[in-house]
Amino acid sequence: MIGLGLIGGSALRALAAHGHRVLGYDADPATRATARTAAARAPQNARWQVTGTIRDTVAAADLVLVAVPLPALPRVFDEIAATGYTGLVTDVTSVKTPVRMLVEQRLQARHQRLSGFVGGHPMAGKESSGFGAADADLFQDCAWVLCFEPGQTSLGDWLDLAELVIGLGARVVPTTAEEHDRAVAAISHVPHLLATALAASAADPLAGALAAGSFRDGTRVAATRPELIAAMCGGNAPAVAPTLDGIIAALQEARAALDAPDPITALLPWLAPGHAMRAGWPPPLAAPLDIPARPDALLRLGRAGGWVRAVAADRSTVSVVRPAPRGPGGLLDDL
Amino acid sequence: MIGLGLIGGSALRALAAHGHRVLGYDADPATRATARTAAARAPQNARWQVTGTIRDTVAAADLVLVAVPLPALPRVFDEIAATGYTGLVTDVTSVKTPVRMLVEQRLQARHQRLSGFVGGHPMAGKESSGFGAADADLFQDCAWVLCFEPGQTSLGDWLDLAELVIGLGARVVPTTAEEHDRAVAAISHVPHLLATALAASAADPLAGALAAGSFRDGTRVAATRPELIAAMCGGNAPAVAPTLDGIIAALQEARAALDAPDPITALLPWLAPGHAMRAGWPPPLAAPLDIPARPDALLRLGRAGGWVRAVAADRSTVSVVRPAPRGPGGLLDDL
Repeated sequence: MIGLGLIGGSALRALAAHGHRVLGYDADPATRATARTAAARAPQNARWQVTGTIRDTVAAADLVLVAVPLPALPRVFDEIAATGYTGLVTDVTSVKTPVRMLVEQRLQARHQRLSGFVGGHPMAGKESSGFGAADADLFQDCAWVLCFEPGQTSLGDWLDLAELVIGLGARVVPTTAEEHDRAVAAISHVPHLLATALAASAADPLAGALAAGSFRDGTRVAATRPELIAAMCGGNAPAVAPTLDGIIAALQEARAALDAPDPITALLPWLAPGHAMRAGWPPPLAAPLDIPARPDALLRLGRAGGWVRAVAADRSTVSVVRPAPRGPGGLLDDL
Repeated sequence: MIGLGLIGGSALRALAAHGHRVLGYDADPATRATARTAAARAPQNARWQVTGTIRDTVAAADLVLVAVPLPALPRVFDEIAATGYTGLVTDVTSVKTPVRMLVEQRLQARHQRLSGFVGGHPMAGKESSGFGAADADLFQDCAWVLCFEPGQTSLGDWLDLAELVIGLGARVVPTTAEEHDRAVAAISHVPHLLATALAASAADPLAGALAAGSFRDGTRVAATRPELIAAMCGGNAPAVAPTLDGIIAALQEARAALDAPDPITALLPWLAPGHAMRAGWPPPLAAPLDIPARPDALLRLGRAGGWVRAVAADRSTVSVVRPAPRGPGGLLDDL
């Protein structure tokens, strides 16, 4: 485990609690000391060790999980490559295409022997950060994206990682880096921009005094540190830009409806799709079923809003959950 | 009390619980029956009566509180005018300029004897609606706007109503109809449009499966009935339109930043004002103080984000709370 912040520290604790032997490293000496002290206090059968270098962490590993912010990844990948490590690598960064490009440049180009990389993104978080906030139960019922790039990712590596994170309580969502980045632009990055624009437009003190539920919820994430929002949105600009274009175009339609002779009637059809989506979210689920553990079936599952809940012992099938079909022509007819 | 939905029913219960004698009417016979049954079960000293007509409700009233949706107001005002009622009237509608115009057309033009109208808007609500959800404590600590129109509103009427709703636990925010409508456009109406646009942009099932906190909160109000959102936004179109224009312009700036060579750095200054507003909301409050019970002082208080917490016995001053000054040149220097 390289990086012992909230996500790395939680994964470290969760893996140790599930009987895995885990070595952890963090670039910050104070974080390493905290993690060492916590290890000594952990139950006898769920301890981990903290090393002083990336080399020591990686030397005997079957899997390297990198849990550092995007700007720190190039240096960490360089250091992993320098150790001669040839095993599986995964990460937890919230944007996947830039990481995939870094892996190609920094890990795979230099080190032909590297067995594989699978990009990951656990959709977990909480208000507090750092190893002190780490929690072995953080991934219970959270969606954990594992990227599958056709022609590049090894199915065996993907299934290994899927089993591991399912063991931590996560739902494994198969998708590509590009599809992931587009989806998180819509459900996480653009929402931060809208919340910020909304908060700025209510700077008037009277508005602040009248603000209640819809303002509080609609602007909550605007209180996130601007550096984090800028890194998320700017780091995913190729996906955030078209999504934001779509939102601006939709708001311009709403704006035109307000100029109609009867704005109330003119707004109604504009409101329908967003209402239908939100009133139907999260969607009802179909009963679990088994599908072939094949790349095409896994990626179709992800596109349909489903996830993997178990990998069969013989690895020929996976047990999956997905939204209930919505009648003829529904997205799930072909699973 | 005309209209026994969530707000009217809650005000009825709250006023009765505070020892006022209240007569209630609702156009729906089933709602009247429910309110009658509830009255019989209420504590002996906090009962109300339900009448079969607006005329019976209004006949001996000192104050008529109208709690019906905007489209029902013209007919209700006509019926009140037809009874010959000459006392004080207030309402609870979420948009104030259209109500003010209706009052002029329907109540005051026909009935020169009408002593006064004060527009009101309690910023209270909950998920459920109807008399069954009515709650005498709904207005505890809620902002209750009471409009003061210079040259029109009687200060005595305004102070009467302020005392009444302060007695129900509310914070009374003095403002004009126009300023109110602009503020609620920013903190309530436009947020509904943004939530709806955001939900519509995440219709993709993969996005739905990955959606978590920022999406859930940012789209919550998109599940509101479209008819209600259309009525709110369309009914306040003159204030919603320029606010939405401002949001669209701000989002276009963010969009341009995403095209910059370094989008992360380019986004940072754009994020600052929204972050500052939300991270500082709600603002810290100054100690209560007394200000003159004069229209100009009251309206300045509302503009500064403050509210009235008590009316002095001699009515020459009011005790107010407002945000703490933020240093030299702050908005509150002149209170």
